[in-house]
Amino acid sequence: MSTEVESAETSPSAVRDAVHEVAGRAQQAARALATAPRQQKDEALNALADALVANAGQIVAANTEDLERGERTGLAPNLADRLRLDRPRIEAIAAAVRDIVRLPDPVGEVVRGSTLPNGLQLRQLRVPMGVIGMVYEARPNVTIDAASLALKSGNAAVLRGGSAAESTNTVLVGLIRQALESVGLPADAVATIDPWGREGVQHLMRARGLVDLLVPRGGAGLIKTVVENSTVPVIETGTGNCHVFVDSSADLAKALEVMLNAKLRRTSVCNAAETLLVHADLADTFLPSVLTALGEQNVRIHADPRALAAAEKAGVKAEAATEGDWFTEYLAAEIAVGVVDDLGQAIEHIRTYSSGHTEAILTSDLRAANRFTAEVDSAVVAVNASTAFTDGAEFGLGAEVGISTQKLHARGPMGLAELTSTKWVVTGEGHTRP
Amino acid sequence: MSTEVESAETSPSAVRDAVHEVAGRAQQAARALATAPRQQKDEALNALADALVANAGQIVAANTEDLERGERTGLAPNLADRLRLDRPRIEAIAAAVRDIVRLPDPVGEVVRGSTLPNGLQLRQLRVPMGVIGMVYEARPNVTIDAASLALKSGNAAVLRGGSAAESTNTVLVGLIRQALESVGLPADAVATIDPWGREGVQHLMRARGLVDLLVPRGGAGLIKTVVENSTVPVIETGTGNCHVFVDSSADLAKALEVMLNAKLRRTSVCNAAETLLVHADLADTFLPSVLTALGEQNVRIHADPRALAAAEKAGVKAEAATEGDWFTEYLAAEIAVGVVDDLGQAIEHIRTYSSGHTEAILTSDLRAANRFTAEVDSAVVAVNASTAFTDGAEFGLGAEVGISTQKLHARGPMGLAELTSTKWVVTGEGHTRP
Repeated sequence: MSTEVESAETSPSAVRDAVHEVAGRAQQAARALATAPRQQKDEALNALADALVANAGQIVAANTEDLERGERTGLAPNLADRLRLDRPRIEAIAAAVRDIVRLPDPVGEVVRGSTLPNGLQLRQLRVPMGVIGMVYEARPNVTIDAASLALKSGNAAVLRGGSAAESTNTVLVGLIRQALESVGLPADAVATIDPWGREGVQHLMRARGLVDLLVPRGGAGLIKTVVENSTVPVIETGTGNCHVFVDSSADLAKALEVMLNAKLRRTSVCNAAETLLVHADLADTFLPSVLTALGEQNVRIHADPRALAAAEKAGVKAEAATEGDWFTEYLAAEIAVGVVDDLGQAIEHIRTYSSGHTEAILTSDLRAANRFTAEVDSAVVAVNASTAFTDGAEFGLGAEVGISTQKLHARGPMGLAELTSTKWVVTGEGHTRP
Repeated sequence: MSTEVESAETSPSAVRDAVHEVAGRAQQAARALATAPRQQKDEALNALADALVANAGQIVAANTEDLERGERTGLAPNLADRLRLDRPRIEAIAAAVRDIVRLPDPVGEVVRGSTLPNGLQLRQLRVPMGVIGMVYEARPNVTIDAASLALKSGNAAVLRGGSAAESTNTVLVGLIRQALESVGLPADAVATIDPWGREGVQHLMRARGLVDLLVPRGGAGLIKTVVENSTVPVIETGTGNCHVFVDSSADLAKALEVMLNAKLRRTSVCNAAETLLVHADLADTFLPSVLTALGEQNVRIHADPRALAAAEKAGVKAEAATEGDWFTEYLAAEIAVGVVDDLGQAIEHIRTYSSGHTEAILTSDLRAANRFTAEVDSAVVAVNASTAFTDGAEFGLGAEVGISTQKLHARGPMGLAELTSTKWVVTGEGHTRP
């Protein structure tokens, strides 16, 4: 593709103008989406699901282009894994779109309402945000998930899917736009700014007034850049330095199972556990057995002094954890392991190092469970359950646009409701305020 | 006061360190607030209400200092009006605090919840935000409102109340901190950064990780500065370029009453109407009479050509509206008046010029009312009611921290619920995800 060259040759203000034009058209299209009836939106989604399956060959061909380019340019293996689409994955993506069809339309839902003492009727309704910007990397499934959720919730979407997935996303965005047009909705409701590369993202971030919400989804670096430079409101997603704390009262057989599931079910996703904290009372019992099990699964272990001692005694390979390890989201078969004196120390550790995504406690002590859920300040706090459950579909929200780790607007998996704002409607009969 | 001189002499990094220390202490205090039972928080609020009344003399004395300094430095009359506290106003502020005592505690409210097919129990609970930064100007009542709402919702507050109100706010913040301590809550849960002046605000805006939410409340310039420079999530408040549209089918007697109420009830507040749009069918009937009524109330009129012609015919003084007038929030006895051909043109005008605060339609046509409420994209849309009703207390939310004009997180009057985030609590019995 020649776009990288083109964008390098384009003057900054030309790129800004181009991005603003895309966003402006999306804003116009958003007006039609905002009042589109559910049936029309669902028809567009069904048309998209059909088109994905019907055009699977074309999608796979474009994806192969991306993968081959990735191989030449040294794309990291975990990114290549996320990038890859085959026919079963495409069918799964289409099925997810049909799942969204079945979800209720969030637009128009009455969140609160009352009749005031003076007779004024007050309703707070869900309304679309308007234009949602999505910035992500090498995950073409996000193109479909994000566009489908935006469409169902009455929003337009401006996408930046990253150069690594550009061929795939070009095909996918084309299919989405065709699906929109096929039911009489404006194609401009979903658009990509990929042709303008990273520079385009800079202008998208500053397009306050054209873009209502920006959702970066990807590595910590991408998210930090967006948060620090955006004037458009941002929702931070996805950085998951998740913790599992095994309390002294835990059912140890279940704790081992949950821990291994949290770490190893899929290591490249944000809800995977990255740090294990073990109560000191378990340093000679549970700790050696969990370290042995992790070692058998070839998990690289970064251990604090007490865990290191336990690993040595158990004959498990481990290395000394650095301060940086406690902050690290490995996204790999790698874990930090520490021993804490009590629940309070576990909570302190989590408050210090966590990214606020998901933390789990394994315990049979109700007071410990209550204190952990009350004092740990993360989007999801799990008791006797794997961190892997933090997921929009698992929570019954349908597909998700990302998992918010901030406190403003949305926290945890972001489904349809999280892509809406509200509007107060006040109805009177010529009421004046004294 | 010598603080302005002091802050000018302090090196930038020293100011940053000082602001970070205040915010850091607030963050520590927020942990105690987050789990404080309602009774303790209500006791603190009652103690504060008592203290306000008991120390009214001291508050008025400090306020007189501020007012006198304002007179010397040429403080604008509408700011001086907002700054002024007398005994009745102090008693009203104390009464508002007691109103907050009576409101339910938002913390712990279960927003959603279900048991998943696999038996996992899922609850989404309201939790405090953490540390809320408030930046405002010359409105000492906001000091008490904001601190009280923050406290009731389990948050700490870091306040910047502006140099014009510094003496008053020093006394008020002292009373709040004493009230907190009197019930065993940490005084640092409410603090001011006024000693570090405008430079302090710069550092508060960039204190991501220490401050969870920043609410600027004041003029458009202040809000623009905060939005463009903050890395802390911001909620925009208060800019109210509110519109009243009188449709051809309106009850004209009521329309006149509502219009005058919206414009003149209190001209210095954000929910006051700033633009009147009149349907062309009413150009010879309603328009002259409303212009006459506005003229009689000494309202300065900026009129489009058709309204100007009507004013001339009616013998009412008016001047030609400039493009800038349609964007202007006068906050004074001043109004822009335009004639539109139909409802669609009224909606277009509002979408172009409004700040997204409150717009009202006066009509007896149900279809017009429905289209207006569906297509006008503002925080509050009123049918046959004055814009003046947009207010937390009027909406039954208790006092308000401000009126959000953005779509993220909170839109319209921000009460207790708007100062909370949520947390998902997942409870299992050793659940692992397949």
